[in-house]
Amino acid sequence: MSNKLKAALLGASGYTGADLLRIGVLHPQLEFTALTANTHAGKPLGTVFPHLDGLGLPRLQQTDDMKWQDFDVVFCGLPHATSQEIIAEIVENHDRPRIIDMSADYRLRDPDSYQKWYGNKHIAPHLQEKAVYGLSEHYREQIKDARIIACPGCYPTAALMALIPLAKAALIDPADIIIDAKSGVSGAGRGLKQNTLFTEAGESLSPYAVASHRHSAELDQEISLAAEQQVAVGFTPHLIPMSRGELVTCHLRLAEGKSAADLRAALKAKYDVEPFVHILDEGVMPSTSMVRGSNLCKINVFEDRIPGRAIVIATLDNLVKGSAGQAIQNFNIAFGIEETTGLQQVAMFP
Amino acid sequence: MSNKLKAALLGASGYTGADLLRIGVLHPQLEFTALTANTHAGKPLGTVFPHLDGLGLPRLQQTDDMKWQDFDVVFCGLPHATSQEIIAEIVENHDRPRIIDMSADYRLRDPDSYQKWYGNKHIAPHLQEKAVYGLSEHYREQIKDARIIACPGCYPTAALMALIPLAKAALIDPADIIIDAKSGVSGAGRGLKQNTLFTEAGESLSPYAVASHRHSAELDQEISLAAEQQVAVGFTPHLIPMSRGELVTCHLRLAEGKSAADLRAALKAKYDVEPFVHILDEGVMPSTSMVRGSNLCKINVFEDRIPGRAIVIATLDNLVKGSAGQAIQNFNIAFGIEETTGLQQVAMFP
Amino acid sequence: MSNKLKAALLGASGYTGADLLRIGVLHPQLEFTALTANTHAGKPLGTVFPHLDGLGLPRLQQTDDMKWQDFDVVFCGLPHATSQEIIAEIVENHDRPRIIDMSADYRLRDPDSYQKWYGNKHIAPHLQEKAVYGLSEHYREQIKDARIIACPGCYPTAALMALIPLAKAALIDPADIIIDAKSGVSGAGRGLKQNTLFTEAGESLSPYAVASHRHSAELDQEISLAAEQQVAVGFTPHLIPMSRGELVTCHLRLAEGKSAADLRAALKAKYDVEPFVHILDEGVMPSTSMVRGSNLCKINVFEDRIPGRAIVIATLDNLVKGSAGQAIQNFNIAFGIEETTGLQQVAMFP
Amino acid sequence: MSNKLKAALLGASGYTGADLLRIGVLHPQLEFTALTANTHAGKPLGTVFPHLDGLGLPRLQQTDDMKWQDFDVVFCGLPHATSQEIIAEIVENHDRPRIIDMSADYRLRDPDSYQKWYGNKHIAPHLQEKAVYGLSEHYREQIKDARIIACPGCYPTAALMALIPLAKAALIDPADIIIDAKSGVSGAGRGLKQNTLFTEAGESLSPYAVASHRHSAELDQEISLAAEQQVAVGFTPHLIPMSRGELVTCHLRLAEGKSAADLRAALKAKYDVEPFVHILDEGVMPSTSMVRGSNLCKINVFEDRIPGRAIVIATLDNLVKGSAGQAIQNFNIAFGIEETTGLQQVAMFP
Repeated sequence: MSNKLKAALLGASGYTGADLLRIGVLHPQLEFTALTANTHAGKPLGTVFPHLDGLGLPRLQQTDDMKWQDFDVVFCGLPHATSQEIIAEIVENHDRPRIIDMSADYRLRDPDSYQKWYGNKHIAPHLQEKAVYGLSEHYREQIKDARIIACPGCYPTAALMALIPLAKAALIDPADIIIDAKSGVSGAGRGLKQNTLFTEAGESLSPYAVASHRHSAELDQEISLAAEQQVAVGFTPHLIPMSRGELVTCHLRLAEGKSAADLRAALKAKYDVEPFVHILDEGVMPSTSMVRGSNLCKINVFEDRIPGRAIVIATLDNLVKGSAGQAIQNFNIAFGIEETTGLQQVAMFP
Repeated sequence: MSNKLKAALLGASGYTGADLLRIGVLHPQLEFTALTANTHAGKPLGTVFPHLDGLGLPRLQQTDDMKWQDFDVVFCGLPHATSQEIIAEIVENHDRPRIIDMSADYRLRDPDSYQKWYGNKHIAPHLQEKAVYGLSEHYREQIKDARIIACPGCYPTAALMALIPLAKAALIDPADIIIDAKSGVSGAGRGLKQNTLFTEAGESLSPYAVASHRHSAELDQEISLAAEQQVAVGFTPHLIPMSRGELVTCHLRLAEGKSAADLRAALKAKYDVEPFVHILDEGVMPSTSMVRGSNLCKINVFEDRIPGRAIVIATLDNLVKGSAGQAIQNFNIAFGIEETTGLQQVAMFP
Repeated sequence: MSNKLKAALLGASGYTGADLLRIGVLHPQLEFTALTANTHAGKPLGTVFPHLDGLGLPRLQQTDDMKWQDFDVVFCGLPHATSQEIIAEIVENHDRPRIIDMSADYRLRDPDSYQKWYGNKHIAPHLQEKAVYGLSEHYREQIKDARIIACPGCYPTAALMALIPLAKAALIDPADIIIDAKSGVSGAGRGLKQNTLFTEAGESLSPYAVASHRHSAELDQEISLAAEQQVAVGFTPHLIPMSRGELVTCHLRLAEGKSAADLRAALKAKYDVEPFVHILDEGVMPSTSMVRGSNLCKINVFEDRIPGRAIVIATLDNLVKGSAGQAIQNFNIAFGIEETTGLQQVAMFP
Repeated sequence: MSNKLKAALLGASGYTGADLLRIGVLHPQLEFTALTANTHAGKPLGTVFPHLDGLGLPRLQQTDDMKWQDFDVVFCGLPHATSQEIIAEIVENHDRPRIIDMSADYRLRDPDSYQKWYGNKHIAPHLQEKAVYGLSEHYREQIKDARIIACPGCYPTAALMALIPLAKAALIDPADIIIDAKSGVSGAGRGLKQNTLFTEAGESLSPYAVASHRHSAELDQEISLAAEQQVAVGFTPHLIPMSRGELVTCHLRLAEGKSAADLRAALKAKYDVEPFVHILDEGVMPSTSMVRGSNLCKINVFEDRIPGRAIVIATLDNLVKGSAGQAIQNFNIAFGIEETTGLQQVAMFP
């Protein structure tokens, strides 16, 4: 009866899924008619996420019980490998729905890179070419028609938003990119792990996966493409005692004769027309509290003290622009809906 | 040109004002055409609250420069005493706008009580009768026509939502009400105080204003009215190391022959039709994370271990249902707008 | 070679065990010659608790491998039921070591009460009479000679320190004691639970186990003894977004003719000679940050707004005076060592 | 009567001063006979720092009332410029006490550099040569005889501990040192600033003073000395939502033919004999929770993904090894006391 587009959400018991619902439930052209969470099948959503109680959303169900042809779109918030299999099953056997995947399974163009970083063989390398890397502001045209939209990881979204325009314009040395990244604990998901207990992560700070984080693969892929040369980026993530938010500090070597002002100009030129990516005024410090709960990414550029170097810092909410918000943005692009629809949440502070 | 209602916000540099803007800027029938903040007059809002940058809101200005007749409504987020004076000036000299006051200045029906608790003499006791205590679910009819709507304090909103129906139905002993209350640090405002520094309030917990908090006056007033007898309530607030959220644990003596089940039934009867006040299922623990950022109040009832006693616990976001959200709700009621308009934000978790 | 007393710590992989080591390793008359942690047996302690690396402590081992006669004292930080069995095995078959138990297994004088609250039948009810309830300041004489010292729970330590002197002196109505308690997340231990993840417990506040927390049994037992009448206390704990610290707000009805000043006088009379329990000056708010990391308990008394009522608030570090510190204090008492030895850590702030 | 060394602490109302007392009060050869805090003169210390109540420390007094000849040592925790003046007054007019300064005033060998970074002219450039840069493990011999010991800043202590041995051994390119630093909020002191309110700094993360932090001056000075060439280091600090702790992530270019293993070997060779500086086992992530409250500095070395680069990460407690603890360590060195005396606090976790 409703003429909203019908959506399924796979993996509704994770934080990414929950935030997709927080945002999506108010989207005027989107209706969630099925939510899956295998271990919680049969339960009302409110027993798993009390903050989502009372919104009229369907009960959780098994993925196996889904009739894929009933949906216009499937948002996939499942773990890697699982996503790949289900998405392959859908795409190979049905001509709808379209897939907006928040997992890592279709982000890497090179199946060997996937296997190297994720440990399992790519199940459907032939489908990889139907997939578009869903960094909205950079792949908008391809997203419009894609069957599979592989939303980027949270760290790559922040870092690439800052770096792609600089690499494309050859303003920086792509072989000397150092990304020192910081994330709130929600990036680790809702699974039970000792290091994400309040008592362990609270009042503490530590790096993790130094020089070995899987998001490195996406970063290498996209920066190499932008720079038109194969590079490996330095990437050092840190776990910060806060729930949401992400900030990447990119330490960059300028190309010969270029300055921090050139970087600023290039970023402004690219993003001035973009509703969700803002270049801050000179000297303003980006802060995760500027973007918490919103689909915004805020960026600033600083001269370094080392001659010939600059620092570019980007911040976003890892669960929104870094995941669920960008997924909704891609949904809007894919279905020809005004891109900001449903995404005008103002950042929540304090 | 817009046929939205024109609003001024006085005190736009405080947290309450900021949250009113976060919510109100998306309200389809509300337009903020003036924002005041005397010490920041002339500045763009984004320099004071970076998370509100880029929303097209007006620059901050002096209160003295306001032309009151230009507004349909004035939201007042000023400190006490200051509010009283400005509101008196407006109401005595102009037949519009209507006033929605988030300060304490017109909450107390008895000017002597005001003077006792707030230390200064009530400036306009004759206007007090034009003011309605804006606890939306309990004073809806009076709010519709009031010139001054005095929104309750955050603690009273939570506690009274739980207690008024019980006192009215004589289910509890109104002379033995113990409210053990807990609030996040935003309740203390944005002013600079040593005890609200991160290093002082973080990883720590303490009571404050034990048996002497000003919100006691509102609690006494409204519970005495509901119970039809003059009472003083026990009220002990605590400062909790979180930014937002409030939870009140009400330790109650049951009236002769009454049970916790009777309390639950009375609360359900009162609130089942209400969109913003929910009685949780038996055994479910209220948590501030269920309501963060939303206009919801969630309540549950528990039997105590002491015979003849019960515990009723209510939670809300102190900046939303406890202040700015309830102000918008009252605006909707006052102007005949569907009450949930602009207030459908889903709680943000994690 | 050393003439220190030889100690084993059972359960060295929990927070309580870790804090016993943090404190005990600097105790001049105590030497830990064995540490057990069954699931980590064989590992260096530093792999389980990096902050305890490099202190020269022994590797973790299996409990089964222990030769009990090698120890002067066994500190037991095992889960309930497990403790009971191992302690029974030791006490029935060996005439040393003495046992300082931080679990709940020998705290309840009545084996039926144990079974009711802990769900399993008491394994060794005949040994219960060899056990002393180790609330140091109240059972000092009995602790001197006890074979089994059952250290109180963290909440009971704080609450009983405030309430026993008042109940003994008949200054309060023991049938109307309401304890509204707040604890940091370390009280929940290091086990993996969803509600203690940083993302769940952070920036949030909620009650738990309302009117059903197991510590109620100890509270009832000790207050009934002090008051010489059988009572059930009201006890409502809350989880606070901080790692350490505990504060109990006791809402009390005064005995006929008594005042808050009488309570203060009784507490001062009892504790003025005690090194670890301080009555704060009138009006000073207790705060967990006053005692963090130390063996102190700080208490203050306030008049309530309800006539005939008073509020007594006590705070301590749940892992120190609420557990490991009190265990060391009891060790000192039991072995005739100056009671403050090894316990002079100053609170850590900020 | 006591044969302890007599100490004055100037600036006892700041966090650094408070932590010096927390640690120093248990030092067997140190006695604080005077504490100054001009704005609180006359008050008991416990009114300013409740956690330091009951320790028998003297009342706060004015600096002007001090008789310098009464002290063996003066610890100075005053703001910059103020320190310089008082220290000059002492040193020029009295032949005792010795000075252990925790401010920045005598850290920079070049008075012009001081003026450039701190904004005021150096008051006593002729005294600068009597001052030793108090990085204990690197200037031990000079500290033994120095009149003025200028303890390093917290960030430089962490970074230099990692970098000096590498620069001295020419294992890295000193002209390409990028220090991405993170600190808890206590680093900002106890002064009232909006950005250090709980509501502003909590659940948030931001850089500050990018490429312009005053600690850059010390870093440049000491690395240039070690490398025997004048360099400017990249230094980008970030404010982390925790009270204590600091972690510096040093992104380094290896010298031709050198590897991460070479860096590890050099650091191990330097620090294996040091009680307070530990090189972690390969792959172990440094975390501020490993060192909280202790005088330890923990360091690890990682290969980078960019060929020819490595990452060295160091962590310490900014108030202890980064300030008050190192001051006590320098006191021990200066007075010929065993260096670990009074500094054996085990890190506090959780």
